[in-house]
Amino acid sequence: MPLKEIQERVDSWIRQYKLGYFKPFESLARLTEEVGELAREINHLYGPKKKKSTEDVKELSDEIADVLFAITCLANSLNIDLDESFNKMMHKIENRDENRWEKK
Amino acid sequence: MPLKEIQERVDSWIRQYKLGYFKPFESLARLTEEVGELAREINHLYGPKKKKSTEDVKELSDEIADVLFAITCLANSLNIDLDESFNKMMHKIENRDENRWEKK
Amino acid sequence: MPLKEIQERVDSWIRQYKLGYFKPFESLARLTEEVGELAREINHLYGPKKKKSTEDVKELSDEIADVLFAITCLANSLNIDLDESFNKMMHKIENRDENRWEKK
Amino acid sequence: MPLKEIQERVDSWIRQYKLGYFKPFESLARLTEEVGELAREINHLYGPKKKKSTEDVKELSDEIADVLFAITCLANSLNIDLDESFNKMMHKIENRDENRWEKK
Repeated sequence: MPLKEIQERVDSWIRQYKLGYFKPFESLARLTEEVGELAREINHLYGPKKKKSTEDVKELSDEIADVLFAITCLANSLNIDLDESFNKMMHKIENRDENRWEKK
Repeated sequence: MPLKEIQERVDSWIRQYKLGYFKPFESLARLTEEVGELAREINHLYGPKKKKSTEDVKELSDEIADVLFAITCLANSLNIDLDESFNKMMHKIENRDENRWEKK
Repeated sequence: MPLKEIQERVDSWIRQYKLGYFKPFESLARLTEEVGELAREINHLYGPKKKKSTEDVKELSDEIADVLFAITCLANSLNIDLDESFNKMMHKIENRDENRWEKK
Repeated sequence: MPLKEIQERVDSWIRQYKLGYFKPFESLARLTEEVGELAREINHLYGPKKKKSTEDVKELSDEIADVLFAITCLANSLNIDLDESFNKMMHKIENRDENRWEKK
């Protein structure tokens, strides 16, 4: 699914509710929450932490999708075009940073 | 750009270097770093914090792209299909959570 | 309770278990997790997010204590003296940054 | 330095400025920022990321102090007694969680 379509699908979902988009600080808090859940999952799967027996182990990929959703909400609420931002960033690292690390 | 293409473009970029993908905890640390930069930018633009004069104000959209990049790297390193994960999550919220908030 | 005593109390607790301290990246992931839970609590108390009925609302102060615990674990594992670090930082902001914001 | 004194010292510093305490979401964003800087430092010291030559390597202990400062600001702004919160949490893990991990 293209980023544009992702932004539109999230927008359609949010626009049906009165609540609407969060304000920037609230969106950021939501993103922080989701990154925290991703951290917990990574600790479960790759770390030394003993799982609590009552805890459901959610899939890591679900947590990544939640982070992606939080980022899309923030971008939508600020009229940021993810495709454009992503292309600009990739263009930069594909060119300016080209020799920052040792090539194969 | 489709998510699949995004994952491939990031993969092509990373595969040219000896360093390769980070391990899960390192990727997570990188994501945490990028979310922190996004937080700083949101504090600059919407919060009460006085900007340091020597600090370049990077665009918020650049920071969001960096978070997207970090998430893509993590997903790639774990063979997670972002399209599939995102669809599963949207399907869930479009159905199960449908009446969680008040409709317009 | 002095910071030194806090570090010692956490150390006594951890040293009774075989698991011991986490490695730096694991400690950081744990901190990220706790900050995420704090973010969720702040969203509950001050934000627009509707509480799920099945969710226990933990006290914000508990979450802050968890963050403090995570930080103390990280500091202990790296032999960092929190008292010294905190004093150095306060000394810096009490002096160098003195005129960064408008005085009352 | 006792936690109570830490809270008072931070309070004295903040109260001299017109700006005063941040609101909860702004404090959280600030904490997220500081945790991000800590993540960067951990990546520098323990991870595979190549340091940029123009980047000053701040001490890890400084970053931990900054996180401690951010947490103290948040606690102060909400009239949370860190000593009390920390004791409650330690009491809980010293008792309820006592057999969660394997003893030495």
